[in-house]
Amino acid sequence: MALTDEQQAEIDAARGEAGRTLRPTVPALEAMLFQAMPVLDHGFVRVVDYMGDDAAVVQAARVSYGRGTKAANEDRGLIRYLMRHRHSTPFEMCEIKYHVKLPIFVARQWIRHRTANVNEYSARYSILDREFYIPAADALAAQSDVNRQGRGGVLEGAEAARVLELLREDAQRNYDHYAWMLNADEAGRVLDPERQGLARELARMNLTLNTYTQWYWKTDLYNLLHFLSLRADAHAQHEIRVYAEAMLETVRAWVPHCFEAFSDYRVGAVTLSAQMLAIVKRMLEGEAVEQAGSGLSKREWRELMAMLGRPA
Amino acid sequence: MALTDEQQAEIDAARGEAGRTLRPTVPALEAMLFQAMPVLDHGFVRVVDYMGDDAAVVQAARVSYGRGTKAANEDRGLIRYLMRHRHSTPFEMCEIKYHVKLPIFVARQWIRHRTANVNEYSARYSILDREFYIPAADALAAQSDVNRQGRGGVLEGAEAARVLELLREDAQRNYDHYAWMLNADEAGRVLDPERQGLARELARMNLTLNTYTQWYWKTDLYNLLHFLSLRADAHAQHEIRVYAEAMLETVRAWVPHCFEAFSDYRVGAVTLSAQMLAIVKRMLEGEAVEQAGSGLSKREWRELMAMLGRPA
Amino acid sequence: MALTDEQQAEIDAARGEAGRTLRPTVPALEAMLFQAMPVLDHGFVRVVDYMGDDAAVVQAARVSYGRGTKAANEDRGLIRYLMRHRHSTPFEMCEIKYHVKLPIFVARQWIRHRTANVNEYSARYSILDREFYIPAADALAAQSDVNRQGRGGVLEGAEAARVLELLREDAQRNYDHYAWMLNADEAGRVLDPERQGLARELARMNLTLNTYTQWYWKTDLYNLLHFLSLRADAHAQHEIRVYAEAMLETVRAWVPHCFEAFSDYRVGAVTLSAQMLAIVKRMLEGEAVEQAGSGLSKREWRELMAMLGRPA
Amino acid sequence: MALTDEQQAEIDAARGEAGRTLRPTVPALEAMLFQAMPVLDHGFVRVVDYMGDDAAVVQAARVSYGRGTKAANEDRGLIRYLMRHRHSTPFEMCEIKYHVKLPIFVARQWIRHRTANVNEYSARYSILDREFYIPAADALAAQSDVNRQGRGGVLEGAEAARVLELLREDAQRNYDHYAWMLNADEAGRVLDPERQGLARELARMNLTLNTYTQWYWKTDLYNLLHFLSLRADAHAQHEIRVYAEAMLETVRAWVPHCFEAFSDYRVGAVTLSAQMLAIVKRMLEGEAVEQAGSGLSKREWRELMAMLGRPA
Repeated sequence: MALTDEQQAEIDAARGEAGRTLRPTVPALEAMLFQAMPVLDHGFVRVVDYMGDDAAVVQAARVSYGRGTKAANEDRGLIRYLMRHRHSTPFEMCEIKYHVKLPIFVARQWIRHRTANVNEYSARYSILDREFYIPAADALAAQSDVNRQGRGGVLEGAEAARVLELLREDAQRNYDHYAWMLNADEAGRVLDPERQGLARELARMNLTLNTYTQWYWKTDLYNLLHFLSLRADAHAQHEIRVYAEAMLETVRAWVPHCFEAFSDYRVGAVTLSAQMLAIVKRMLEGEAVEQAGSGLSKREWRELMAMLGRPA
Repeated sequence: MALTDEQQAEIDAARGEAGRTLRPTVPALEAMLFQAMPVLDHGFVRVVDYMGDDAAVVQAARVSYGRGTKAANEDRGLIRYLMRHRHSTPFEMCEIKYHVKLPIFVARQWIRHRTANVNEYSARYSILDREFYIPAADALAAQSDVNRQGRGGVLEGAEAARVLELLREDAQRNYDHYAWMLNADEAGRVLDPERQGLARELARMNLTLNTYTQWYWKTDLYNLLHFLSLRADAHAQHEIRVYAEAMLETVRAWVPHCFEAFSDYRVGAVTLSAQMLAIVKRMLEGEAVEQAGSGLSKREWRELMAMLGRPA
Repeated sequence: MALTDEQQAEIDAARGEAGRTLRPTVPALEAMLFQAMPVLDHGFVRVVDYMGDDAAVVQAARVSYGRGTKAANEDRGLIRYLMRHRHSTPFEMCEIKYHVKLPIFVARQWIRHRTANVNEYSARYSILDREFYIPAADALAAQSDVNRQGRGGVLEGAEAARVLELLREDAQRNYDHYAWMLNADEAGRVLDPERQGLARELARMNLTLNTYTQWYWKTDLYNLLHFLSLRADAHAQHEIRVYAEAMLETVRAWVPHCFEAFSDYRVGAVTLSAQMLAIVKRMLEGEAVEQAGSGLSKREWRELMAMLGRPA
Repeated sequence: MALTDEQQAEIDAARGEAGRTLRPTVPALEAMLFQAMPVLDHGFVRVVDYMGDDAAVVQAARVSYGRGTKAANEDRGLIRYLMRHRHSTPFEMCEIKYHVKLPIFVARQWIRHRTANVNEYSARYSILDREFYIPAADALAAQSDVNRQGRGGVLEGAEAARVLELLREDAQRNYDHYAWMLNADEAGRVLDPERQGLARELARMNLTLNTYTQWYWKTDLYNLLHFLSLRADAHAQHEIRVYAEAMLETVRAWVPHCFEAFSDYRVGAVTLSAQMLAIVKRMLEGEAVEQAGSGLSKREWRELMAMLGRPA
């Protein structure tokens, strides 16, 4: 359960206040505002605010006065052209703000995307909640044998059970000791009036990296799509990919033409190096090219065959 | 007259469409949307879109779920605290987008503020309008004798008349030659079917730097205030300052608490160096400090006396 | 001639001072330091300083203590892997600083690359040189009929002659009037002691966009390669492409492994959309695919056939 | 002891290779290259590379061809002028790269400074060292009663002893369980051939926030000074301040004029709000101003009195 009753009540209260605006509005995204989408065991993503729509991308590309042509078909074509030719600035004219609850080790990956605005819950100032990410059974992956930063099959049996037990026990024990060191419970109530309590900015160091934190994260559509192209990718770590996938749904609702172009020209696209392109041309001429003599390393050959859906 | 009838008609048409939103709205800024504020002789600034309000700054600072406390007084106090202590990230949570028409030499200063998104009218792709900035009589300043990048008194008489004449004639002649080289008029109609016409990306080089261009410019509130603190300042060039002053009015309407804090802690504030502070302390002890022996250079001494409203 | 005798003398003097350093040094790039490479009729590019080398990219990727493995072959392979998989941060660990002299309309394109540090010659503070870009005969291109922002064939005969005449006359006249308004010659000497002279920050607006300016421009290797991939491209305007091509030579000397990987995986690479990839797969299966029924627009079909070196 | 013998040997080996360069060199900083400055119990900072010097700031400000005037006194004056008037771009022309070993909770604060390049040791790819930050006795601060994000006095006696015991035990136990889950020791040797071992990207979540990580961090002088002004400040958390203080020493060696100007106009400077300035003027007129009726809140009044060295 990602949201406490209290949190949900607050969100519901805020949700009531609708206003009138002359700004572009997107009904499909309005319907998602104030809705927390659950992610992992205690996390969520919710859209807090947004600026612009598909037409704002077109408007910026045309630097016209109005909202761009009303011919939706032309707008779609222009957006596809911009995406295909990697024009970036018109997509920067849309902005979105999320509220995210996520484990600290995921936050550490996420924050490496620098072109965004962030306000994170401060553990110097406040006491963190007693919530930790514990992987579901099917996410408890073994280390990959072939990829140093990848996952292999799922752990099972006694090893899996022991891993889950350790993760749970260690996170809870460390949190309990964190609270003891603070001399305060989760709600900030003093535990022992005879003790002083360690400074919050120090006590937090005893917490484990699967402790949940939360932040407001705001970025423009161009940088959001770049983030999603990396983090919704099959090579991304599962624990950040599930956030990216939830955010993809918000993009689909918000800017459907941009989403479609992104799917076709980024997510589903492949890049062929000069050498790969030369090989594809030879294959199209009917030549039977093999790795030996192709000029590609074995690794690159495998990558090319995978793109072309052929056996390596 | 900053806007043609056609431009105004387009803006009026767009203005009609109001929608409902769950996002924060600011009625005072809504009233300015689609309103072009005239600046200089042919330029303007208008707000195209915005995200957030005073409460969004507070919300980010608290990373709370709701819209922040309803106690407006506490919000104001928190915003003043954030501004005074130079906290930047909560102010980044608001975003605004302007449409600006401005002379190219002003655009060249403006663009040096890098943390913004820009889409400019393309003179590679389109034909620029026949509009140039010609200073009003009271803006026709002589070079300052004391400040290499400053203005002295206003030029008058024959010299002023000749300067205005040169600016007007040169801009117009160069535009006419631009059109001749393009072999096209302002509306893109071919002038002489026997000629090919120079590429637009080349012909534009004949234009003068007071030719008007236009762009969409989007930034967050933190970077906007930084821009305004430099460009609405008395040391800024008059021709960019008038844009900054128009934008200050939009900030006042949009985020009144932030505007007030900005006025008190940035615009009206002064910074004393370690040496200046030491001198002020000595003066407060009743000592009659003079420049000689103060440890300040003559220039710094003048700056300090100016801050304190005393004769140098 | 890009450099005056005085400029060359200053550079030669600076060139004399060699020092010892424990930092990575690149002899091939050292040989280019303080050498202005001429570009266009009066412009140049010269490397002023640099930080890092191929090994610094490897070092960052490994976050190792030493300079990375000495096995050059492994370093090359790692750099190719990083480039192919679009890892960006290791390439950010190298930095380079250029001194560039360029026409203002080129500077306006260039400055849109925001992730760089810039100090430009100030025409508020100083008087610009009397130098303008006038295209060589073979660069005097007509407007393209098919591409709104492209060039067609070269202008010839009377039209070409008249264009060159207009560009030359207008630039010179406007500069002369600029000097008159300043009441100063190029060296800052007062022309008429009876006049005040217009403020420099105003007089500059009378100059044409082909007037030369200059700046120091500093960026990291990742952003430099991004700049070069766009500006050394066949679709870039000729007048900025010649700068990019000169800079490519400095990259080749500086970081030869990165340069090679960039050539193979960026410059010579192509991106196939999901739809394009599906078509290539069908063609590899021996199917005769045609535009009609391919799912591609005519424009995209032409782009695909051009990539594959086949007739559209 | 911050460096292992092996690390020191690698650094010493790299240190041997000195080369000749035409670039600006700074002997005082060369002497610090490859020297790890110990920070906290297991951390360090060392300068890996640098670009530019005091003269490079001057050169950029003048956009001159040579190295700037040789009159050191004029250079110093110009640098002080640039710092006093908050010119930023000339300071961006110098760049520095550090190798830093630091606890994860410190890295989380540090990374919020976005205008920098970072390569961090990857715990997805590699196994982290068994090293944790445990505060020295005099850094074991109690929570402040008056400042929610500050420290009070030092914990003592049984409470202090228990806190240190908990920090040590929890970090070690969690690391041991991390190794068990990985089924590998610190050197990557398999512990139990019958088990698969959890993926590294998952196992890391069991580590505590005081575990050490390391990175290469590169930034320009302007952003470095901004970082140091915030992180070497008395309000910064002790554990990041000690890093900032070590880095300040490298700045002092590298760019002594900039360091001096930074000390006078940033570190030792104060900013007076419009209201505070008005009060100082009244006090200089001899008026006895008190908080009541001053227009300042009690908090701001205390801040002003503290600046002026007077009792609140």
